[in-house]
Amino acid sequence: MEAPPDRSTTPGRFITFEGGEGAGKSTQVRHLAAKLTAAGVATLATREPGGSAGAEEIRELLVHGAAARWDATAETLLHFAARRDHLVKTVWPALQRGTWVLCDRFADSTRAYQGAGQGGDPAFIEQLYGAVVGDFAPDLTLVLDLPVEVGLARAAARRDGGARYEGMGQAFHQRLREGFLEIARRAPDRCRVIDATASEEAVAAAVWSTVAERLELAP
Amino acid sequence: MEAPPDRSTTPGRFITFEGGEGAGKSTQVRHLAAKLTAAGVATLATREPGGSAGAEEIRELLVHGAAARWDATAETLLHFAARRDHLVKTVWPALQRGTWVLCDRFADSTRAYQGAGQGGDPAFIEQLYGAVVGDFAPDLTLVLDLPVEVGLARAAARRDGGARYEGMGQAFHQRLREGFLEIARRAPDRCRVIDATASEEAVAAAVWSTVAERLELAP
Ligand SMILES: Nc1ncnc2c1ncn2[C@@H]1O[C@H](COP(=O)(O)OP(=O)(O)OP(=O)(O)O)[C@@H](O)[C@H]1O
Ligand SMILES: Nc1ncnc2c1ncn2[C@@H]1O[C@H](COP(=O)(O)OP(=O)(O)OP(=O)(O)O)[C@@H](O)[C@H]1O
Ligand SMILES: [Mg+2]
Ligand SMILES: [Mg+2]
Repeated sequence: MEAPPDRSTTPGRFITFEGGEGAGKSTQVRHLAAKLTAAGVATLATREPGGSAGAEEIRELLVHGAAARWDATAETLLHFAARRDHLVKTVWPALQRGTWVLCDRFADSTRAYQGAGQGGDPAFIEQLYGAVVGDFAPDLTLVLDLPVEVGLARAAARRDGGARYEGMGQAFHQRLREGFLEIARRAPDRCRVIDATASEEAVAAAVWSTVAERLELAP
Repeated sequence: MEAPPDRSTTPGRFITFEGGEGAGKSTQVRHLAAKLTAAGVATLATREPGGSAGAEEIRELLVHGAAARWDATAETLLHFAARRDHLVKTVWPALQRGTWVLCDRFADSTRAYQGAGQGGDPAFIEQLYGAVVGDFAPDLTLVLDLPVEVGLARAAARRDGGARYEGMGQAFHQRLREGFLEIARRAPDRCRVIDATASEEAVAAAVWSTVAERLELAP
């Protein structure tokens, strides 16, 4: 599908999870997918970069190698190439079928990592967003916010490798955190900041009540 | 190098070879590199997609798999990601050192394949060119032109695999040929169309005299 479905005629919703390393995005996608499924809602959990065969191959280029392997411009282009494949092959067809799509990172991560973090040109990122994604956007974005040290400690304790950004230094991660908060401030109708320092269950409850409230799903 | 060198202060020149499948681009890059080297000119022969470690990895994603593996938007983004890495890591540093760079395909191939051939939006391609390449452009582009059947027969006789586009059908290759000729018509100061049906040696002689004339290199 080379264009998004008409959202007014499909019941599916597109919910993205954003935030720095170790904020609990992957954990909360699992919790919300389980709750929606239990509530009888057809749900697909996916992630970026990745989520389709081609995008997963691009992900391999992005997550491995030295932190400075690509300049911010090349890295932004690779993310949008993967995003395009993911939308066309996975996200848009699922929404067309009426499935809810939960996505572990989406375009706000490009804005925060390649923009705020790596100093890439924000206008270039928005230009690509317009050309590649068009006026399609998440129905709801949950920004999981927590102090940098806490997130990095969680990610380090998890020790699952492939962590290109974890070695980028405190200042980089601080810019990231502020980048995500600024995105949420500028798009209050789309984004909700969630305190991610609470327990896994408390965060899951906050996510669920936000989804119920914003997307009119009976809790 | 995240920006091109100041061309007015560096002796290197950037020459690109363009044209459809089997036109003789790779063959003529080798001939010209040999002649320039024999004339004492520091010369680097490179290619797109590819020409740097990262770009060669992106090339693998582009040259393998089904012809319709990526949509035109994703494919254009992958080409520009590879191009960015190639420019930053290979082309601009070589020009900065004063080396002449001969490139087997460059942005005109994106214009012809993803634009004229696959029907991608030309404005999107030019927007990416501006953001990724800036006002850097080849000093000279040699468009090797020949009838579609002749090029495809040559490429088929070569039988080296990885030929994603060779199965795309006559009409596609006809649009490509016309696309390249149109690019040359619109940029006559940069481009020269070379009759590629002549013998390998005759084409090499035509390339050499064009280079000598356009770039003021004593033949
Ligand atoms: N609320 C929480 N309190 C404490 N630990 C948590 C909480 N949520 C998740 N964790 C743990 O922290 C680690 C990181 O969580 P998770 O992998 O979900 O984060 P993430 O945001 O997906 O990280 P990354 O950006 O690296 O993918 C995991 O080991 C997870 O079990
Ligand atoms: N002028 C020529 N006359 C006849 N055969 C030629 C000529 N130039 C090259 N060839 C042969 O045609 C085949 C294709 O040439 P070459 O590989 O240089 O083309 P190409 O433009 O690089 O193709 P591709 O787009 O597939 O990379 C080779 O086998 C080559 O030896
Ligand atoms: Mg995760
Ligand atoms: Mg070739």
